[in-house]
Amino acid sequence: MKEFDLIKTYFAKQLVKRKDVALGVGDDCAILSAPENKQIAITTDTLVAGTHFPEDTPARAIGHKAVAVSLSDLASMGAEPLWISLAISLPRVEQSWIEEFCEGLFELCEYYNVQLVGGDTTQGPLTITTTAQGSVNKDKFLTRSGASRGDWLYVTGNVGGAALALEQHYGRLTLSQEDKEAVFERLNHPSPRVLAGQIIKDYASAAIDISDGVLADLTHICNASSVGANIVLDDMPMHAAISHYLPQDKAYSLALNGGDDYELLFAVSESNKVAAETALSNANIPFSCIGQTNASGKITTTMNNKPVAIDIQGYQHFASNE
Amino acid sequence: MKEFDLIKTYFAKQLVKRKDVALGVGDDCAILSAPENKQIAITTDTLVAGTHFPEDTPARAIGHKAVAVSLSDLASMGAEPLWISLAISLPRVEQSWIEEFCEGLFELCEYYNVQLVGGDTTQGPLTITTTAQGSVNKDKFLTRSGASRGDWLYVTGNVGGAALALEQHYGRLTLSQEDKEAVFERLNHPSPRVLAGQIIKDYASAAIDISDGVLADLTHICNASSVGANIVLDDMPMHAAISHYLPQDKAYSLALNGGDDYELLFAVSESNKVAAETALSNANIPFSCIGQTNASGKITTTMNNKPVAIDIQGYQHFASNE
Repeated sequence: MKEFDLIKTYFAKQLVKRKDVALGVGDDCAILSAPENKQIAITTDTLVAGTHFPEDTPARAIGHKAVAVSLSDLASMGAEPLWISLAISLPRVEQSWIEEFCEGLFELCEYYNVQLVGGDTTQGPLTITTTAQGSVNKDKFLTRSGASRGDWLYVTGNVGGAALALEQHYGRLTLSQEDKEAVFERLNHPSPRVLAGQIIKDYASAAIDISDGVLADLTHICNASSVGANIVLDDMPMHAAISHYLPQDKAYSLALNGGDDYELLFAVSESNKVAAETALSNANIPFSCIGQTNASGKITTTMNNKPVAIDIQGYQHFASNE
Repeated sequence: MKEFDLIKTYFAKQLVKRKDVALGVGDDCAILSAPENKQIAITTDTLVAGTHFPEDTPARAIGHKAVAVSLSDLASMGAEPLWISLAISLPRVEQSWIEEFCEGLFELCEYYNVQLVGGDTTQGPLTITTTAQGSVNKDKFLTRSGASRGDWLYVTGNVGGAALALEQHYGRLTLSQEDKEAVFERLNHPSPRVLAGQIIKDYASAAIDISDGVLADLTHICNASSVGANIVLDDMPMHAAISHYLPQDKAYSLALNGGDDYELLFAVSESNKVAAETALSNANIPFSCIGQTNASGKITTTMNNKPVAIDIQGYQHFASNE
């Protein structure tokens, strides 16, 4: 099957037809009408098979994840998702694989009314690059750099589930069938916190999505905002299954260093604390206050009000080259 | 070197700082202010080493080409380039390679005042995906689908140079040093026809950039516009070096089937013919009228007013799977 037929057959099949897409998939460019009095948020993410997801990940999960990781970046800026472009390299054309991939892709796009507006299909090792765009009210967006000393730190949902799935995948742990299904759902079908992002944009001073792990992503916020931070481990919302398999210190290490949870990590000033918590509660979004920024210039962790040591190491490509 | 240092060190070094970029490289998203009363044109292209460029292509040329192919797509819609995102997979981190790649990338970006606003860096076989955005006046853009029967067909510049370079690369021809340099310049440093695109948008009925070859790209216009076409080979602007190495029939076949020239192919109605030619001449843009669309539903070629046969085969990924 020729590239062009592929694109026509599958990628043009989506149900989402936004009014702001004047010209969609199929020409040299798509033509989009940006919303008036708003700004555009844009993000690009690449997923490489074997690096960003296990080689045996189902096609549907890969399609889902390709959209989810980009929408998660939009969420962390407080943006409303609009459009997505997809570049995919495939070692060969397997129609059933592409069908399932598109199912996962379009399901999440439909949920958020995001239209696929273009892309490219090439032959090569399985690699997917998505570029997603969303809108924010003018100069009303979150960054990593706005946290002040004394701001409260929050995460949505819970962390460590995706990392536990990878422990099972690499044979380092053996989970029960029930736990396995639960954590692989976290790894393979992450839910981008789009609604949470749009709520916290009115209250948070800084935000990031947890793709590299709580500690690595908190480090990004701390570096960009020139603050330190202390994490109160007692308040860390751990995925329920972790404690079944790991002693406490290893459990915290996994939950804090593991990536791929795609929750939001954000900072809120003392004066916005009640309003932020009320707004999130009203929207039924689970969240936990996990600590506070400070002037220390470093990241520390405490348990039972006592300092404890945790390895700080996020997931870094090429890190092995050092 | 860690991914994040890489991005900071090289990709944040560009000189272009557009006023419409509220937040550039370095956060989860970039934030852009779309121009008022305009629409956004967006295009995504992937270049895979060994497929879209020879493995031994200099890093600087790869950086140039990554921008050029995307700007060429914008040109074919008549868009003014604004921003670009870059996803790059690298087998390993070689600082000198990345420096040279960035030189080629930023040189072309600076020429067109295009700002790199984001991207992703991953480990994997050398693959580059660029997503470029430009602006068009509202509902004033070119497509592949607007040609009518009887429209005149044009190409900018000349064709076949890049294909001749690939003949040399694959050892099927041996060129003189002078010709080799000339055609590898065409292959490695294509000049996107950005100005030509902005001129013809007021006159052309349809346009496409020649990435897959004249015949393949004309086929796209004909299919999208439901027209046939005849090409007058006598008027085809061939790269000067081709006739030194190939007999006439092979020369035409190479020039019409070879891709990577990144010229524009466009259709102009009889009533716009003089105005289009005048506007292009005034801007010193080389162009040739190479034929005319018709009702035949197929693509034919003539020479000395007599029909001649030319293979119709563009460059298609996966085509070997058929």
